[in-house]
Amino acid sequence: MSEQQKNRITVEIYGQSYHMVGAETTDHMLNVAKMVDDKMREIQLHNRSLDSSKLAVLTAVNAMHDLLKLKERVEQLEQQLINLKG
Amino acid sequence: MSEQQKNRITVEIYGQSYHMVGAETTDHMLNVAKMVDDKMREIQLHNRSLDSSKLAVLTAVNAMHDLLKLKERVEQLEQQLINLKG
Repeated sequence: MSEQQKNRITVEIYGQSYHMVGAETTDHMLNVAKMVDDKMREIQLHNRSLDSSKLAVLTAVNAMHDLLKLKERVEQLEQQLINLKG
Repeated sequence: MSEQQKNRITVEIYGQSYHMVGAETTDHMLNVAKMVDDKMREIQLHNRSLDSSKLAVLTAVNAMHDLLKLKERVEQLEQQLINLKG
């Protein structure tokens, strides 16, 4: 991908600025940043003693768990489609 | 869910210990922890000056991005199934 096709944006997550670069729309990047920020604040409410590093790791764990479950769902749906088409 | 049905495990992610409790199998929890640990080390290779907190946030951003894309894929597949069944 050429540099011209990349979108650039600075987002704020849990009080820190991050420079994001990618092929996605800036709306998508803002949405992702907001989801991470929201999840960190949600986890912090239930674990007030955690530092920001551990909070971020637990947020990553949470998202990775959801990702694995959704991958299983995609596999199920793809199999259903194969069965219906076959 | 009763306490008896929950699985408990201590995992290590980027040199820190985390106590995980959940309805998932311990294999699933170990897998999630390894994916987060792997991703943090991968991002660190390309951004050697980042502290562990920022590394973890970028790992969460990465997973959340993949999650959003997979949600779109699930919606597409579900729509295809509806069309085929209808």
